[in-house]
Amino acid sequence: MSKNSKPSLSVVRRLPRYYRFLGELEAGGIQRISSREFAAMIGVTASQVRQDLNCFGGFGQQGYGYNVAVLREEIGKILRVDRQRHAVLIGCGNMGLALAIHMRFEDRGFKLCAIFDNDPAKVGIKAGEWAVRNASSLEAYCKENQPEVAILCIPKEAATSLCENLVKWGIRGFWNFSHYDMSVRFKDIAVENVHLGDSLMTLSYRVADFEEDK
Amino acid sequence: MSKNSKPSLSVVRRLPRYYRFLGELEAGGIQRISSREFAAMIGVTASQVRQDLNCFGGFGQQGYGYNVAVLREEIGKILRVDRQRHAVLIGCGNMGLALAIHMRFEDRGFKLCAIFDNDPAKVGIKAGEWAVRNASSLEAYCKENQPEVAILCIPKEAATSLCENLVKWGIRGFWNFSHYDMSVRFKDIAVENVHLGDSLMTLSYRVADFEEDK
Repeated sequence: MSKNSKPSLSVVRRLPRYYRFLGELEAGGIQRISSREFAAMIGVTASQVRQDLNCFGGFGQQGYGYNVAVLREEIGKILRVDRQRHAVLIGCGNMGLALAIHMRFEDRGFKLCAIFDNDPAKVGIKAGEWAVRNASSLEAYCKENQPEVAILCIPKEAATSLCENLVKWGIRGFWNFSHYDMSVRFKDIAVENVHLGDSLMTLSYRVADFEEDK
Repeated sequence: MSKNSKPSLSVVRRLPRYYRFLGELEAGGIQRISSREFAAMIGVTASQVRQDLNCFGGFGQQGYGYNVAVLREEIGKILRVDRQRHAVLIGCGNMGLALAIHMRFEDRGFKLCAIFDNDPAKVGIKAGEWAVRNASSLEAYCKENQPEVAILCIPKEAATSLCENLVKWGIRGFWNFSHYDMSVRFKDIAVENVHLGDSLMTLSYRVADFEEDK
Protein backbone atom coordinates (compact mmCIF):
# COMPACT_ATOMS: atom_id res chain seq x y z
CA MET A 1 0.00 0.00 0.00
CA SER A 2 1.52 3.31 -1.02
CA LYS A 3 0.30 6.21 1.07
CA ASN A 4 0.33 9.08 -1.42
CA SER A 5 -0.33 11.95 0.95
CA LYS A 6 -1.91 12.42 4.34
CA PRO A 7 -5.63 11.79 3.89
CA SER A 8 -8.01 14.32 5.39
CA LEU A 9 -10.06 13.44 8.43
CA SER A 10 -13.23 13.51 6.36
CA VAL A 11 -11.83 10.77 4.11
CA VAL A 12 -10.81 8.75 7.16
CA ARG A 13 -14.29 9.12 8.63
CA ARG A 14 -15.83 7.49 5.56
CA LEU A 15 -13.61 4.40 5.74
CA PRO A 16 -15.45 2.63 8.60
CA ARG A 17 -18.62 2.89 6.54
CA TYR A 18 -16.89 1.35 3.53
CA TYR A 19 -15.50 -1.36 5.80
CA ARG A 20 -18.95 -2.11 7.19
CA PHE A 21 -20.60 -2.43 3.78
CA LEU A 22 -17.75 -4.56 2.45
CA GLY A 23 -18.29 -6.86 5.42
CA GLU A 24 -21.95 -7.22 4.46
CA LEU A 25 -21.03 -7.96 0.85
CA GLU A 26 -18.50 -10.53 1.96
CA ALA A 27 -21.02 -12.16 4.29
CA GLY A 28 -23.43 -12.31 1.34
CA GLY A 29 -20.87 -14.16 -0.78
CA ILE A 30 -20.11 -11.24 -3.14
CA GLN A 31 -16.52 -11.44 -4.36
CA ARG A 32 -16.12 -8.34 -6.47
CA ILE A 33 -17.89 -5.07 -7.06
CA SER A 34 -17.47 -2.05 -9.33
CA SER A 35 -16.88 1.34 -7.77
CA ARG A 36 -20.19 2.43 -9.32
CA GLU A 37 -22.18 -0.38 -7.67
CA PHE A 38 -20.35 0.03 -4.39
CA ALA A 39 -20.97 3.79 -4.40
CA ALA A 40 -24.69 3.30 -5.12
CA MET A 41 -24.95 0.87 -2.22
CA ILE A 42 -23.36 3.34 0.16
CA GLY A 43 -25.12 6.39 -1.21
CA VAL A 44 -22.09 8.38 -2.42
CA THR A 45 -20.71 8.98 -5.92
CA ALA A 46 -18.36 6.55 -7.65
CA SER A 47 -15.75 9.29 -8.02
CA GLN A 48 -15.90 9.89 -4.26
CA VAL A 49 -15.17 6.22 -3.62
CA ARG A 50 -12.30 6.20 -6.11
CA GLN A 51 -10.85 9.45 -4.77
CA ASP A 52 -11.09 8.28 -1.17
CA LEU A 53 -9.39 4.97 -1.88
CA ASN A 54 -6.74 6.64 -4.03
CA CYS A 55 -5.59 8.46 -0.89
CA PHE A 56 -4.32 5.08 0.26
CA GLY A 57 -3.04 3.79 -3.07
CA GLY A 58 -6.16 2.71 -4.94
CA PHE A 59 -6.93 -1.06 -4.68
CA GLY A 60 -9.22 -1.14 -7.75
CA GLN A 61 -8.48 -2.51 -11.18
CA GLN A 62 -9.81 -0.96 -14.38
CA GLY A 63 -12.54 -3.21 -15.80
CA TYR A 64 -12.58 -5.50 -12.77
CA GLY A 65 -13.59 -3.24 -9.91
CA TYR A 66 -12.73 -4.12 -6.35
CA ASN A 67 -12.07 -7.51 -4.85
CA VAL A 68 -14.39 -7.32 -1.83
CA ALA A 69 -12.33 -9.42 0.58
CA VAL A 70 -9.04 -7.77 -0.35
CA LEU A 71 -10.44 -4.24 -0.14
CA ARG A 72 -12.04 -4.97 3.22
CA GLU A 73 -8.80 -6.35 4.57
CA GLU A 74 -6.81 -3.37 3.31
CA ILE A 75 -9.23 -0.86 4.82
CA GLY A 76 -9.13 -2.83 8.05
CA LYS A 77 -5.34 -2.49 8.04
CA ILE A 78 -5.56 1.26 7.41
CA LEU A 79 -7.97 1.56 10.35
CA ARG A 80 -5.80 -0.81 12.43
CA VAL A 81 -8.80 -2.82 13.49
CA ASP A 82 -6.48 -5.82 13.74
CA ARG A 83 -4.88 -4.19 16.79
CA GLN A 84 -6.08 -4.75 20.35
CA ARG A 85 -5.30 -1.46 22.01
CA HIS A 86 -5.91 -1.53 25.72
CA ALA A 87 -8.89 0.67 26.66
CA VAL A 88 -10.53 1.66 29.94
CA LEU A 89 -14.09 2.84 30.32
CA ILE A 90 -14.76 5.55 32.89
CA GLY A 91 -18.30 6.13 34.10
CA CYS A 92 -20.67 3.22 34.31
CA GLY A 93 -24.06 4.92 33.86
CA ASN A 94 -26.48 3.79 31.18
CA MET A 95 -24.28 4.96 28.33
CA GLY A 96 -21.18 3.31 29.80
CA LEU A 97 -23.14 0.11 30.37
CA ALA A 98 -24.55 0.17 26.84
CA LEU A 99 -21.04 0.41 25.43
CA ALA A 100 -19.57 -2.21 27.77
CA ILE A 101 -22.29 -4.71 26.93
CA HIS A 102 -22.99 -4.08 23.24
CA MET A 103 -19.90 -2.62 21.59
CA ARG A 104 -17.66 -5.14 19.85
CA PHE A 105 -14.40 -3.40 20.75
CA GLU A 106 -12.26 -6.28 19.57
CA ASP A 107 -13.55 -5.89 15.99
CA ARG A 108 -12.59 -2.24 16.00
CA GLY A 109 -9.02 -2.20 17.20
CA PHE A 110 -9.51 -2.20 20.96
CA LYS A 111 -9.78 -4.43 23.97
CA LEU A 112 -11.85 -3.14 26.85
CA CYS A 113 -9.85 -4.06 29.95
CA ALA A 114 -11.41 -2.30 32.90
CA ILE A 115 -14.37 -0.16 33.93
CA PHE A 116 -14.28 2.55 36.60
CA ASP A 117 -16.90 4.56 38.45
CA ASN A 118 -16.72 6.86 41.45
CA ASP A 119 -20.13 5.86 42.81
CA PRO A 120 -19.59 3.44 45.76
CA ALA A 121 -22.96 1.83 44.94
CA LYS A 122 -21.60 0.77 41.55
CA VAL A 123 -18.14 -0.39 42.58
CA GLY A 124 -17.96 -4.17 42.52
CA ILE A 125 -21.10 -4.76 40.43
CA LYS A 126 -20.81 -6.59 37.14
CA ALA A 127 -21.00 -4.59 33.90
CA GLY A 128 -20.93 -7.13 31.12
CA GLU A 129 -17.94 -9.31 31.93
CA TRP A 130 -16.21 -6.66 34.05
CA ALA A 131 -16.51 -5.88 37.74
CA VAL A 132 -16.69 -2.09 38.13
CA ARG A 133 -13.58 -0.71 39.84
CA ASN A 134 -13.33 2.28 42.13
CA ALA A 135 -12.27 5.40 40.23
CA SER A 136 -9.79 6.11 43.02
CA SER A 137 -7.70 3.21 41.72
CA LEU A 138 -7.50 4.65 38.20
CA GLU A 139 -4.07 6.24 38.56
CA ALA A 140 -2.52 3.07 39.94
CA TYR A 141 -4.23 1.01 37.23
CA CYS A 142 -2.94 3.26 34.45
CA LYS A 143 0.61 3.21 35.79
CA GLU A 144 0.61 -0.55 36.10
CA ASN A 145 -1.29 -1.53 32.95
CA GLN A 146 -0.65 1.41 30.63
CA PRO A 147 -3.95 1.57 28.81
CA GLU A 148 -3.73 3.69 25.67
CA VAL A 149 -7.31 4.81 25.33
CA ALA A 150 -9.97 6.07 27.74
CA ILE A 151 -13.69 6.00 27.04
CA LEU A 152 -15.31 8.86 28.93
CA CYS A 153 -18.94 8.38 29.90
CA ILE A 154 -18.92 10.95 32.67
CA PRO A 155 -20.40 14.43 33.03
CA LYS A 156 -18.64 17.38 31.45
CA GLU A 157 -17.38 18.79 34.76
CA ALA A 158 -15.80 15.49 35.77
CA ALA A 159 -14.18 15.08 32.36
CA THR A 160 -12.67 18.56 32.40
CA SER A 161 -10.67 17.87 35.52
CA LEU A 162 -9.93 14.19 34.88
CA CYS A 163 -8.62 14.22 31.34
CA GLU A 164 -5.52 16.25 32.09
CA ASN A 165 -4.51 13.60 34.63
CA LEU A 166 -5.31 10.81 32.21
CA VAL A 167 -2.96 12.33 29.65
CA LYS A 168 -0.31 12.53 32.38
CA TRP A 169 -0.89 8.86 33.17
CA GLY A 170 -0.26 7.89 29.56
CA ILE A 171 -3.65 7.95 27.82
CA ARG A 172 -3.18 8.94 24.17
CA GLY A 173 -6.67 8.61 22.81
CA PHE A 174 -10.13 9.48 24.08
CA TRP A 175 -13.53 8.28 23.00
CA ASN A 176 -15.43 11.09 24.58
CA PHE A 177 -19.16 10.98 25.36
CA SER A 178 -18.91 13.68 28.00
CA HIS A 179 -20.16 16.81 26.13
CA TYR A 180 -16.78 18.42 26.59
CA ASP A 181 -14.81 19.23 23.46
CA MET A 182 -11.30 18.10 24.17
CA SER A 183 -9.59 18.51 20.82
CA VAL A 184 -8.73 22.13 21.32
CA ARG A 185 -6.74 21.71 24.53
CA PHE A 186 -5.01 18.45 23.66
CA LYS A 187 -3.38 18.77 20.30
CA ASP A 188 -1.28 15.60 20.29
CA ILE A 189 -3.96 13.34 21.64
CA ALA A 190 -6.49 11.62 19.40
CA VAL A 191 -10.01 12.53 20.44
CA GLU A 192 -13.30 11.33 19.04
CA ASN A 193 -15.99 13.48 20.59
CA VAL A 194 -19.37 11.80 20.31
CA HIS A 195 -22.06 14.47 20.46
CA LEU A 196 -25.31 12.60 20.11
CA GLY A 197 -27.16 15.89 20.53
CA ASP A 198 -25.54 17.22 17.34
CA SER A 199 -26.85 14.25 15.42
CA LEU A 200 -30.33 14.86 16.85
CA MET A 201 -30.24 18.51 15.77
CA THR A 202 -29.17 17.46 12.28
CA LEU A 203 -32.21 15.19 12.18
CA SER A 204 -34.38 18.13 13.23
CA TYR A 205 -33.08 20.12 10.25
CA ARG A 206 -33.53 17.26 7.82
CA VAL A 207 -37.10 16.39 8.81
CA ALA A 208 -38.01 20.07 8.29
CA ASP A 209 -36.14 20.11 4.99
CA PHE A 210 -38.11 17.17 3.57
CA GLU A 211 -41.32 18.82 4.76
CA GLU A 212 -40.54 22.04 2.89
CA ASP A 213 -39.57 20.22 -0.30
CA LYS A 214 -43.07 18.86 -0.61
CA MET B 1 -32.64 35.22 6.41
CA SER B 2 -32.11 34.64 2.72
CA LYS B 3 -31.42 31.03 1.84
CA ASN B 4 -29.07 31.35 -1.13
CA SER B 5 -28.98 27.74 -2.24
CA LYS B 6 -29.54 24.36 -0.70
CA PRO B 7 -26.68 23.81 1.76
CA SER B 8 -24.90 20.47 1.62
CA LEU B 9 -25.38 17.96 4.38
CA SER B 10 -21.79 18.45 5.52
CA VAL B 11 -22.47 22.15 6.13
CA VAL B 12 -25.65 21.26 8.02
CA ARG B 13 -23.74 18.78 10.16
CA ARG B 14 -21.39 21.51 11.37
CA LEU B 15 -24.18 23.81 12.52
CA PRO B 16 -25.03 21.97 15.78
CA ARG B 17 -21.39 22.35 16.76
CA TYR B 18 -21.47 26.09 16.06
CA TYR B 19 -24.71 26.29 18.02
CA ARG B 20 -23.17 24.50 20.98
CA PHE B 21 -20.08 26.71 21.11
CA LEU B 22 -22.18 29.86 20.74
CA GLY B 23 -24.23 28.67 23.71
CA GLU B 24 -21.04 28.36 25.76
CA LEU B 25 -19.91 31.83 24.71
CA GLU B 26 -23.30 33.28 25.60
CA ALA B 27 -23.28 31.53 28.98
CA GLY B 28 -19.83 33.05 29.56
CA GLY B 29 -21.17 36.56 28.88
CA ILE B 30 -19.43 37.01 25.51
CA GLN B 31 -21.52 39.25 23.26
CA ARG B 32 -19.59 39.30 20.02
CA ILE B 33 -16.82 37.36 18.34
CA SER B 34 -14.86 37.59 15.10
CA SER B 35 -15.06 34.72 12.62
CA ARG B 36 -11.32 34.20 13.22
CA GLU B 37 -11.69 33.81 16.99
CA PHE B 38 -14.79 31.69 16.62
CA ALA B 39 -13.09 29.42 14.09
CA ALA B 40 -10.05 28.98 16.36
CA MET B 41 -12.30 28.02 19.26
CA ILE B 42 -14.03 25.37 17.18
CA GLY B 43 -10.92 24.15 15.43
CA VAL B 44 -11.83 25.00 11.82
CA THR B 45 -10.68 27.80 9.51
CA ALA B 46 -12.28 31.25 9.51
CA SER B 47 -13.12 30.91 5.84
CA GLN B 48 -14.95 27.66 6.58
CA VAL B 49 -17.09 29.42 9.18
CA ARG B 50 -17.83 32.31 6.81
CA GLN B 51 -18.61 30.00 3.90
CA ASP B 52 -20.86 27.80 6.02
CA LEU B 53 -22.84 30.73 7.37
CA ASN B 54 -23.06 32.34 3.95
CA CYS B 55 -25.11 29.33 2.84
CA PHE B 56 -27.84 30.75 5.05
CA GLY B 57 -27.35 34.43 4.32
CA GLY B 58 -24.28 35.42 6.36
CA PHE B 59 -25.09 37.01 9.76
CA GLY B 60 -21.65 38.64 10.20
CA GLN B 61 -20.71 42.28 9.79
CA GLN B 62 -17.37 43.40 8.39
CA GLY B 63 -15.28 44.82 11.23
CA TYR B 64 -17.71 43.75 13.92
CA GLY B 65 -17.83 39.99 13.64
CA TYR B 66 -20.80 38.03 14.89
CA ASN B 67 -23.29 38.96 17.57
CA VAL B 68 -23.19 35.78 19.66
CA ALA B 69 -26.81 35.77 20.84
CA VAL B 70 -28.21 36.68 17.42
CA LEU B 71 -26.11 34.11 15.57
CA ARG B 72 -27.04 31.40 18.05
CA GLU B 73 -30.71 32.21 17.69
CA GLU B 74 -30.50 32.21 13.89
CA ILE B 75 -28.71 28.87 13.78
CA GLY B 76 -31.29 27.51 16.22
CA LYS B 77 -34.02 28.60 13.80
CA ILE B 78 -32.26 26.96 10.87
CA LEU B 79 -32.00 23.74 12.88
CA ARG B 80 -35.61 24.17 14.10
CA VAL B 81 -34.61 23.46 17.67
CA ASP B 82 -37.50 25.70 18.73
CA ARG B 83 -39.89 22.99 17.49
CA GLN B 84 -41.21 20.17 19.67
CA ARG B 85 -41.62 17.35 17.21
CA HIS B 86 -43.30 14.34 18.73
CA ALA B 87 -40.85 11.41 19.03
CA VAL B 88 -41.15 7.82 20.18
CA LEU B 89 -38.29 5.68 21.41
CA ILE B 90 -38.34 2.00 20.50
CA GLY B 91 -36.15 -0.42 22.43
CA CYS B 92 -35.47 0.22 26.08
CA GLY B 93 -32.11 -1.50 26.57
CA ASN B 94 -29.16 0.38 28.01
CA MET B 95 -28.80 2.64 24.99
CA GLY B 96 -32.50 3.47 24.94
CA LEU B 97 -32.43 4.14 28.67
CA ALA B 98 -29.34 6.32 28.37
CA LEU B 99 -31.10 8.44 25.74
CA ALA B 100 -34.41 8.59 27.62
CA ILE B 101 -32.71 9.71 30.82
CA HIS B 102 -29.90 11.95 29.62
CA MET B 103 -30.79 13.44 26.26
CA ARG B 104 -32.33 16.91 26.39
CA PHE B 105 -34.71 16.34 23.49
CA GLU B 106 -36.63 19.55 24.11
CA ASP B 107 -33.48 21.64 23.48
CA ARG B 108 -33.00 19.93 20.13
CA GLY B 109 -36.36 20.21 18.42
CA PHE B 110 -38.12 17.16 19.86
CA LYS B 111 -40.38 15.98 22.61
CA LEU B 112 -40.03 12.37 23.67
CA CYS B 113 -43.60 11.18 24.17
CA ALA B 114 -43.49 7.42 24.60
CA ILE B 115 -41.13 4.47 24.97
CA PHE B 116 -41.81 0.97 23.67
CA ASP B 117 -40.22 -2.43 24.17
CA ASN B 118 -41.28 -5.94 23.20
CA ASP B 119 -39.81 -7.57 26.31
CA PRO B 120 -42.69 -8.31 28.74
CA ALA B 121 -40.26 -7.90 31.65
CA LYS B 122 -39.70 -4.28 30.66
CA VAL B 123 -43.27 -3.28 29.89
CA GLY B 124 -44.63 -1.08 32.67
CA ILE B 125 -41.30 -0.22 34.28
CA LYS B 126 -40.25 3.41 34.51
CA ALA B 127 -37.61 4.73 32.11
CA GLY B 128 -36.95 8.27 33.18
CA GLU B 129 -40.39 9.85 33.38
CA TRP B 130 -41.99 7.35 31.01
CA ALA B 131 -43.59 3.98 31.70
CA VAL B 132 -42.42 1.54 29.04
CA ARG B 133 -45.27 0.51 26.73
CA ASN B 134 -45.76 -2.79 24.98
CA ALA B 135 -44.43 -2.71 21.42
CA SER B 136 -47.64 -4.41 20.32
CA SER B 137 -49.44 -1.12 20.96
CA LEU B 138 -47.10 0.84 18.67
CA GLU B 139 -49.37 0.84 15.62
CA ALA B 140 -52.38 2.05 17.59
CA TYR B 141 -50.24 4.68 19.31
CA CYS B 142 -48.88 6.00 16.00
CA LYS B 143 -52.33 6.18 14.44
CA GLU B 144 -53.76 8.01 17.41
CA ASN B 145 -50.88 10.33 18.28
CA GLN B 146 -49.07 10.70 14.96
CA PRO B 147 -45.49 10.92 16.17
CA GLU B 148 -43.17 12.23 13.47
CA VAL B 149 -39.90 10.68 14.55
CA ALA B 150 -38.83 7.25 15.82
CA ILE B 151 -35.67 6.59 17.78
CA LEU B 152 -34.57 3.03 17.08
CA CYS B 153 -32.54 1.34 19.82
CA ILE B 154 -33.29 -2.19 18.67
CA PRO B 155 -31.21 -4.87 16.96
CA LYS B 156 -30.67 -4.69 13.23
CA GLU B 157 -33.01 -7.57 12.44
CA ALA B 158 -35.88 -6.01 14.37
CA ALA B 159 -35.28 -2.63 12.72
CA THR B 160 -35.30 -4.06 9.22
CA SER B 161 -38.80 -5.43 9.56
CA LEU B 162 -40.21 -2.67 11.75
CA CYS B 163 -39.20 0.46 9.90
CA GLU B 164 -41.28 -0.19 6.82
CA ASN B 165 -44.35 -0.33 9.03
CA LEU B 166 -43.31 2.77 10.90
CA VAL B 167 -43.12 4.69 7.63
CA LYS B 168 -46.58 3.39 6.78
CA TRP B 169 -47.82 4.60 10.17
CA GLY B 170 -46.58 8.12 9.46
CA ILE B 171 -43.02 8.28 10.81
CA ARG B 172 -40.98 10.69 8.69
CA GLY B 173 -37.68 10.73 10.51
CA PHE B 174 -35.51 8.13 12.21
CA TRP B 175 -32.74 8.47 14.72
CA ASN B 176 -31.27 5.10 14.14
CA PHE B 177 -28.95 3.30 16.58
CA SER B 178 -29.71 -0.13 15.17
CA HIS B 179 -26.68 -0.82 12.93
CA TYR B 180 -28.94 -0.93 9.90
CA ASP B 181 -28.39 1.69 7.20
CA MET B 182 -31.82 2.92 6.28
CA SER B 183 -31.04 5.82 3.98
CA VAL B 184 -30.79 3.76 0.84
CA ARG B 185 -34.24 2.20 1.03
CA PHE B 186 -36.13 5.23 2.31
CA LYS B 187 -35.34 8.17 0.09
CA ASP B 188 -37.97 10.63 1.34
CA ILE B 189 -37.49 9.92 5.00
CA ALA B 190 -34.89 11.74 7.08
CA VAL B 191 -32.52 9.28 8.71
CA GLU B 192 -29.66 9.92 11.06
CA ASN B 193 -27.78 6.64 11.42
CA VAL B 194 -25.63 6.66 14.53
CA HIS B 195 -22.83 4.19 14.07
CA LEU B 196 -20.81 4.39 17.25
CA GLY B 197 -18.55 1.64 15.90
CA ASP B 198 -17.51 3.89 13.01
CA SER B 199 -16.43 6.55 15.45
CA LEU B 200 -14.44 3.96 17.39
CA MET B 201 -12.66 2.81 14.21
CA THR B 202 -11.84 6.42 13.35
CA LEU B 203 -10.26 6.72 16.80
CA SER B 204 -8.24 3.58 16.08
CA TYR B 205 -6.85 5.20 12.92
CA ARG B 206 -6.09 8.48 14.65
CA VAL B 207 -4.25 6.99 17.62
CA ALA B 208 -2.06 5.08 15.18
CA ASP B 209 -1.57 8.21 13.09
CA PHE B 210 -0.26 10.25 16.02
CA GLU B 211 2.03 7.36 16.93
CA GLU B 212 3.56 7.27 13.46
CA ASP B 213 4.04 11.02 13.32
CA LYS B 214 6.42 10.84 16.28
